[in-house]
Amino acid sequence: MPHINMITLDYGSGGKKTSALIENLIVPAMNSEELSRLGDGAVIKGAEELAFSTDSFVVDPVFFPGGDIGKLSICGTVNDLAMCGAEPKYLSLSFIIEEGFAKADLEKIVKSIAETAEKAKVKVVTGDTKVVEKGRGDKIYINTSGIGFLKHRGLSPKNIKPGDIVIVSGMVGDHGTAVMLARNKLLEADIRSDCAPLSFLAEKLLSAAPDGEVRVLRDPTRGGVATTLNEFVEGTVLGIEINENTVPVRPEVRSACSMLGLDPLYCANEGKLLCIVSREYKEAVLEAMKGEETGKDATVIGEVTDRIPGKVTVRTKLGGTRIIQKLAVAQLPRIC
Amino acid sequence: MPHINMITLDYGSGGKKTSALIENLIVPAMNSEELSRLGDGAVIKGAEELAFSTDSFVVDPVFFPGGDIGKLSICGTVNDLAMCGAEPKYLSLSFIIEEGFAKADLEKIVKSIAETAEKAKVKVVTGDTKVVEKGRGDKIYINTSGIGFLKHRGLSPKNIKPGDIVIVSGMVGDHGTAVMLARNKLLEADIRSDCAPLSFLAEKLLSAAPDGEVRVLRDPTRGGVATTLNEFVEGTVLGIEINENTVPVRPEVRSACSMLGLDPLYCANEGKLLCIVSREYKEAVLEAMKGEETGKDATVIGEVTDRIPGKVTVRTKLGGTRIIQKLAVAQLPRIC
Repeated sequence: MPHINMITLDYGSGGKKTSALIENLIVPAMNSEELSRLGDGAVIKGAEELAFSTDSFVVDPVFFPGGDIGKLSICGTVNDLAMCGAEPKYLSLSFIIEEGFAKADLEKIVKSIAETAEKAKVKVVTGDTKVVEKGRGDKIYINTSGIGFLKHRGLSPKNIKPGDIVIVSGMVGDHGTAVMLARNKLLEADIRSDCAPLSFLAEKLLSAAPDGEVRVLRDPTRGGVATTLNEFVEGTVLGIEINENTVPVRPEVRSACSMLGLDPLYCANEGKLLCIVSREYKEAVLEAMKGEETGKDATVIGEVTDRIPGKVTVRTKLGGTRIIQKLAVAQLPRIC
Repeated sequence: MPHINMITLDYGSGGKKTSALIENLIVPAMNSEELSRLGDGAVIKGAEELAFSTDSFVVDPVFFPGGDIGKLSICGTVNDLAMCGAEPKYLSLSFIIEEGFAKADLEKIVKSIAETAEKAKVKVVTGDTKVVEKGRGDKIYINTSGIGFLKHRGLSPKNIKPGDIVIVSGMVGDHGTAVMLARNKLLEADIRSDCAPLSFLAEKLLSAAPDGEVRVLRDPTRGGVATTLNEFVEGTVLGIEINENTVPVRPEVRSACSMLGLDPLYCANEGKLLCIVSREYKEAVLEAMKGEETGKDATVIGEVTDRIPGKVTVRTKLGGTRIIQKLAVAQLPRIC
């Protein structure tokens, strides 16, 4: 596509320019035979049991320290599949581009998608491109959906039992804080999004215990650790008690959050997981996690109890206890 | 969700309001046990070979005669899977909602999605909901991705041979014209989108001939019949000759197109398919198609030749011949 530096509505027509965009910019970056066939869909190898997940990414800004919307859109869906106990295999990739978006930025995002997909060992096999008028979108929105082959069964919040242990895979709140700072430029701080594929970490920790001993995995994205823990126990007879002292938060994230009036427990993460495991397999799972780069700071932050049905409580640094609820309003809109 | 008639940014927070929207409005409509589990993804039954497809829908307006963005988003992905020779089974459903969108309209769209999915015998098993600020979207955009179980192999434009027959399943140009009129209200005409699931029609016609005799199926959406036929032969030694007299177009579509300066051959269809079949199985395939409601007007419109490599020509009503190319610019932006 020579001499074109902006995406116009014609690129969404389904005609010549759509083909040029797909064939010259997107397909060559992806190294995917399935994608290069350009059919209505891709024909792929299957498996007896699958995981299937979807996410639309609307993060603002599109580029932020530690990542961009392209990297995020691969990690987000890869991680959702991994949290189901599956090996992520195939992704779809769908763009909604705002008229006038810079071609150079699209190229950067496509490159980032290709690199992250390679790192996560997933293949983009099918896609779609739409263009909307200026003012009817915001630069670029991306949907990825993914198929994984199921490897580990029995992951469900329903399997949580009193006495189970709550583990977080690392520092909390990096993504939300990084995006917030990138957006507002209020503070100078070197905080990067933790955006990363967690499929290798998930596979490692799930293999460290018999199926069923790890009760549930989830990546605490929008709404953060507090919201995810609430989702595990709401409406049940169980509760979760966490100890604020043990929740790992980078000092720079803590101080940025404190200046912005945010709570790291509610800030989005894009490269962390929460794991609830039987007390018996706590050590085995922790050790397995620490052997992976994305789990090296894994630590126990709390446990499951039947004393506070349906609630999550935090023992604060000062020794008090408070109930933490699901995020009530949009603390940070368009964080992912 | 009592007393709320508009979607606000809080509904995209990932917290309480997102849960309320999903649990009270979306999940109850869908009748899907997988979806109601609300995990990071769905665990589903697989098969040895799969088809996988994705589409983002940005149609403007959201409601139009014959359908709405919800119905379209199910039909579009179902049809893409069917064109691969697969039985559509599972769909993902992802919303990008503009702040201020009426809750009543969202409910209508969700109802339409549920009804169309039921009709097409597919299950929505996983989803996502994002909300963007007013002026950063346009009411609602929907992505659906789908998984189908492969039933028929060997569908590819590469299998097309000289002498093969080109069949269209019915009247051409309805969707594009209906949306155009709904948008501009320039003309009074009773034209409805043809938006419909084509999976039963595809299965019927593919079963009427041994695998391989039907060379390729495709639904001519954006860019219309002209663009799809060009995609089949571009860069090959084969061409396609069609006969304008035999291309079925409703009189009201023909006259609306003529007044608007459009060509029905380039207008989007959402309930039609193009089929290239061996001469030997032409009758069997046509008969099978005519037995289905969505194929009752199926007819031969042309054939494959080696006289015009890489080109599509039309024999016009006046006896002349012209080359028709892929759509060059956006005739109708945001048609699907």
